[in-house]
Amino acid sequence: MSDALVITPQQFLTHWQAHRRLSRRAIAAFPEDQLFTFSVGGMRPFGALANEMLGMAVPTVRGIITDKWDTYAESTATTQSDVLAQWDTSTTLLEELFPQIPANRFQDVMTAFGQWKMPGYDLLLYIVDNEIHHRGQGYVYLRALGIEPPPFYDRS
Amino acid sequence: MSDALVITPQQFLTHWQAHRRLSRRAIAAFPEDQLFTFSVGGMRPFGALANEMLGMAVPTVRGIITDKWDTYAESTATTQSDVLAQWDTSTTLLEELFPQIPANRFQDVMTAFGQWKMPGYDLLLYIVDNEIHHRGQGYVYLRALGIEPPPFYDRS
Repeated sequence: MSDALVITPQQFLTHWQAHRRLSRRAIAAFPEDQLFTFSVGGMRPFGALANEMLGMAVPTVRGIITDKWDTYAESTATTQSDVLAQWDTSTTLLEELFPQIPANRFQDVMTAFGQWKMPGYDLLLYIVDNEIHHRGQGYVYLRALGIEPPPFYDRS
Repeated sequence: MSDALVITPQQFLTHWQAHRRLSRRAIAAFPEDQLFTFSVGGMRPFGALANEMLGMAVPTVRGIITDKWDTYAESTATTQSDVLAQWDTSTTLLEELFPQIPANRFQDVMTAFGQWKMPGYDLLLYIVDNEIHHRGQGYVYLRALGIEPPPFYDRS
């Protein structure tokens, strides 16, 4: 089965941006005064999780393209409007950068941020998966706040 | 960037099975009497979410191979040991079935379970993403129960 085309780079980017639209809706669904304060079970609030997502997305794609890695750093946004503004900037940057990933870099093994060694595709999946994982946690926070989260299947 | 190899079918299967090992640990981490009863914010308990994952995984791969679709049905497991036994059976079946997916079926558009129309790769991503999403919710339940969830990055 080794030679089948599973997904193209453009399809991967489209899939990720669709998830990012959903994540943006989850961020926006929080009452402004709860985004950085509310949590369940002693976990990080959703604003901190969104800052982690912001810290990973564009810097990882830049690193995959260039193989130059900065130290990993989360976003330091402290308000909902800051998070959303940075989210939108990242959306634009990802559209510009992702198509610049050289063809071989998806399968090349690299050490991201000087710490995490894996092939490029695995790194990209890690970031998307991490976003889905934490967004799922945000859904529980929203439910615990009595707010209906955005539908998981609607990525429009 | 259209002709770059992002991920092979074998790499996709390996990635999914790694997630499924983590999900199995999350299921096993629940106290037996909480798996089908505990939840936060009125959501479904984690046992019900695991039954959804079981209902999707093997039947979807079978459908992608054959384009014959049964009606979608969740697992009806009611105990932790039942869920884990079905999980292990699914693991074995996925190893057998996934390599039988014809090369063209990743990009073919199909109507899964007579309801959800999308390319094969998108359907597979949907199922893995849904598993990650709900497992993330299970992590919050575990934390709310005072239990440390298995590390997200460890898929061994």
